[in-house]
Amino acid sequence: MPFIDGPNGEEVVPIRINGVSQPIDSTSLIPVESNIQDKVIHYAQSATPELAIKAAEASYQAFWKWKNSTPNERRDLLLRTANVIDSWLDRFIELQVAETSCTESWAQFNTITMARCMREIASNISHATTGELPSLESSGSLVLVYKEPIGPVLAIPPWNASLILSGRALAAPIAAGCSVVLKASELCPRTHHTIVLAYEEAGMPKGLINVLQASREDGPAVTEALIAHRAIRKVEFIGSAAVGRIIGQLASKHLKPVLMELGGKAPAIVLKDADVKFAAEKIVEGALLHHGQICMSTDRIVVVQDVADELIQELRKVVETKYPNGTSHAVSKKQAKRAHDLLQNARATGARFLVGDGSLNAAGTSVTPTIITDVKPTAEIYHEEIFGPAAMLITVKDEAEAIQVANDTEYGLNAAVHSRDILAAIRVAKQIEAGQVHIGNITMYDEPNIPIGGTKGSGWGRNNGKYALNEFLAEKTITILDPTAGGAKFGK
Amino acid sequence: MPFIDGPNGEEVVPIRINGVSQPIDSTSLIPVESNIQDKVIHYAQSATPELAIKAAEASYQAFWKWKNSTPNERRDLLLRTANVIDSWLDRFIELQVAETSCTESWAQFNTITMARCMREIASNISHATTGELPSLESSGSLVLVYKEPIGPVLAIPPWNASLILSGRALAAPIAAGCSVVLKASELCPRTHHTIVLAYEEAGMPKGLINVLQASREDGPAVTEALIAHRAIRKVEFIGSAAVGRIIGQLASKHLKPVLMELGGKAPAIVLKDADVKFAAEKIVEGALLHHGQICMSTDRIVVVQDVADELIQELRKVVETKYPNGTSHAVSKKQAKRAHDLLQNARATGARFLVGDGSLNAAGTSVTPTIITDVKPTAEIYHEEIFGPAAMLITVKDEAEAIQVANDTEYGLNAAVHSRDILAAIRVAKQIEAGQVHIGNITMYDEPNIPIGGTKGSGWGRNNGKYALNEFLAEKTITILDPTAGGAKFGK
Repeated sequence: MPFIDGPNGEEVVPIRINGVSQPIDSTSLIPVESNIQDKVIHYAQSATPELAIKAAEASYQAFWKWKNSTPNERRDLLLRTANVIDSWLDRFIELQVAETSCTESWAQFNTITMARCMREIASNISHATTGELPSLESSGSLVLVYKEPIGPVLAIPPWNASLILSGRALAAPIAAGCSVVLKASELCPRTHHTIVLAYEEAGMPKGLINVLQASREDGPAVTEALIAHRAIRKVEFIGSAAVGRIIGQLASKHLKPVLMELGGKAPAIVLKDADVKFAAEKIVEGALLHHGQICMSTDRIVVVQDVADELIQELRKVVETKYPNGTSHAVSKKQAKRAHDLLQNARATGARFLVGDGSLNAAGTSVTPTIITDVKPTAEIYHEEIFGPAAMLITVKDEAEAIQVANDTEYGLNAAVHSRDILAAIRVAKQIEAGQVHIGNITMYDEPNIPIGGTKGSGWGRNNGKYALNEFLAEKTITILDPTAGGAKFGK
Repeated sequence: MPFIDGPNGEEVVPIRINGVSQPIDSTSLIPVESNIQDKVIHYAQSATPELAIKAAEASYQAFWKWKNSTPNERRDLLLRTANVIDSWLDRFIELQVAETSCTESWAQFNTITMARCMREIASNISHATTGELPSLESSGSLVLVYKEPIGPVLAIPPWNASLILSGRALAAPIAAGCSVVLKASELCPRTHHTIVLAYEEAGMPKGLINVLQASREDGPAVTEALIAHRAIRKVEFIGSAAVGRIIGQLASKHLKPVLMELGGKAPAIVLKDADVKFAAEKIVEGALLHHGQICMSTDRIVVVQDVADELIQELRKVVETKYPNGTSHAVSKKQAKRAHDLLQNARATGARFLVGDGSLNAAGTSVTPTIITDVKPTAEIYHEEIFGPAAMLITVKDEAEAIQVANDTEYGLNAAVHSRDILAAIRVAKQIEAGQVHIGNITMYDEPNIPIGGTKGSGWGRNNGKYALNEFLAEKTITILDPTAGGAKFGK
């Protein structure tokens, strides 16, 4: 395993270009901390714009070979890599828990799902890259519509679902015939780096994926060097809307398209025909899972007045019974404190606490599971993603007001609707501005072969399976004029 | 025809919102000039940010009704509108010639093609909006993948192919179930406005398309007011790369996706097996048609040395025989002077003139058909779109160098390859970085049912037929958990 000893014997995650770990510059190391262990567990090399350019150039060289690979070669690489990932399950669980302080079950789920997502993407390669022969109005021409890989991709995945999101961000462009520069999260560089090592173990051509990371200080210059580089043809960004705006503006400045997967503020709507006890279980799970640090976490509980009291009682019961000792830990003290501060700001502006008090534990690593109500639009939490184990409850008159409240957000990633009346639930789901609506379930349902992505401020484009592949393919039209058969004049 | 008399009896193209022409404010009128007639032919009302917001709000109201229209209603509207356009052929020809100084044949071609593009888009509605039922790993759920219209669209088409480009820019979102705010070109506001009137004549619901224009001074504030408005969900921009960068950055700031159709610097490659005489005809036509004011105009002639002398002789013959009196007129004196200046700058930096001298006619409305060679990379024309009746010739050693030279540009819209060896031509076409490559033809081939669009600095996304529809649709996934059948936990 090519983790390099730093000058003082510390373990350093390097920058890897063309399958070669770059020499360590000990003056720019990023300390990687474990929130649970409350200590620096290793370091990562911070990139420079020069190294970023070297990575982009390596990806460009690799692209022109990989572009001409056969569907079978691409599929084989992904299937072999998925097998390596399965066999490295324990290592991946250990890395994720160490770097992001998640639970073992979350880490296991992430690892298994990443491999499954890769197999699903792999199985779509030959279909997704099949071109077309359109019929024409001018009989003198032959038209071949190919689907070509769009070119080298800059992928910027986050730390929170560290394997699923980065795994998809790599597998889809690779399957489409693109190469990738992976900008690993500085919070989990070793986890992200190890996915690239799995591709290498499976026989990936040199330079097909190059990986680097940058400190918060070095990040902007490194990111712009990559986006500005002529080799990079598309950016895949997964993260916050705030950073998405910056990445998007940089990309537009250099005329590069972006696949944008941003945050959410998922509503769970409880209608009057709901199985309230069942809904409460799904809502609590959706709000608390992974310390609420999922873009699809349940942030808002929108309940019609007929069943509001019953729901509040059930929510309290579920939290007290299932989470007597709170939930898991945040990725960092900073992240835990942010969620805590959002809740205290809500209290200061008049919110009532129905469950929990939004307090930090003694170590400052975790927030108490909390549900609040009477949140004013002036409270920060009303508009901002919570990204902590908490949700706010809003009581509404009826179905129509539930839809209106659910849509009253800049975001549009996902939602849940609870009702035994399935046609009513579908009717509501169709009116929710979101990429995914889950009836009778938690807000973050995701399978490898169903499309996932946002609308409004949650981004655009779709991930998973064939949908993800299409984001990295573009039609090239080749027409051939047969001069003996007449042929068309500027399309007429 | 709702063209309004201004306070001094002048004819004014108004701003039209919800099917109502807005009152004229005579302090902000845009004079619309004819380059051939060398005079102001009418005026157009320049918009304010307040009117822009009013237009966005009207489109939002119209969207929520149109979103729920049936495929048949949408198809009927497009087919009826196409019939109106056919019946208004003479009026459309007159308008285009008056506002953009194009030839009658160009205006006729644009009108007929717009109607054909609309019919092709209309015929794809029911297929393109058909959702899917994916198979699942967790048998307890039902998954419905709908294709929903993305929301109100801001469409910004250019003046050069004033009907085809704006016609597609309207028809595709309308077909997908979106509404549109059309920002008409200030050079041809009446032409663009009249398309909206054709939709009204065909029975368009009020507010489905709202149309405005802005002077160069008012433009930035009006455009930002539209892009920033919550109602607008996607921007379709067709124009120069320079303006595209600005529009793209504004859109990213507000997290809106953009369909980007920008300029080009099309190469026509002549290989040693080419029918040189035939190639010369196609190249001259591709360079001179519509005074070279097409994003797909032939800007660069890349010829292998074996046939370079023969090609130059043939090019000279075609220009002298077919264009003894030059070509058509530019849209404006400013545009003609720009092309003239680019050619004189090339001369000053050492270019040789093979055909023509790049001079302006006496009235300053038209540039002499011109082909130059020995252009240095320091000349502006080496990198910039010419947008005039001229091309530069580059002699190369062989096929490999031809590909390299063809790709040596920021743009990637389209290209032509001339060779009787069709397999060689396809091999070259596959290596050209462009959305379209035409073998044995002019560079601007386009049919209503084949995808068209760019790569690199020429933009992204594809237009025409089903491809255009897909740019305005997004998958919404609705899952339904059956609790009696088990069901999945966060996708596992």
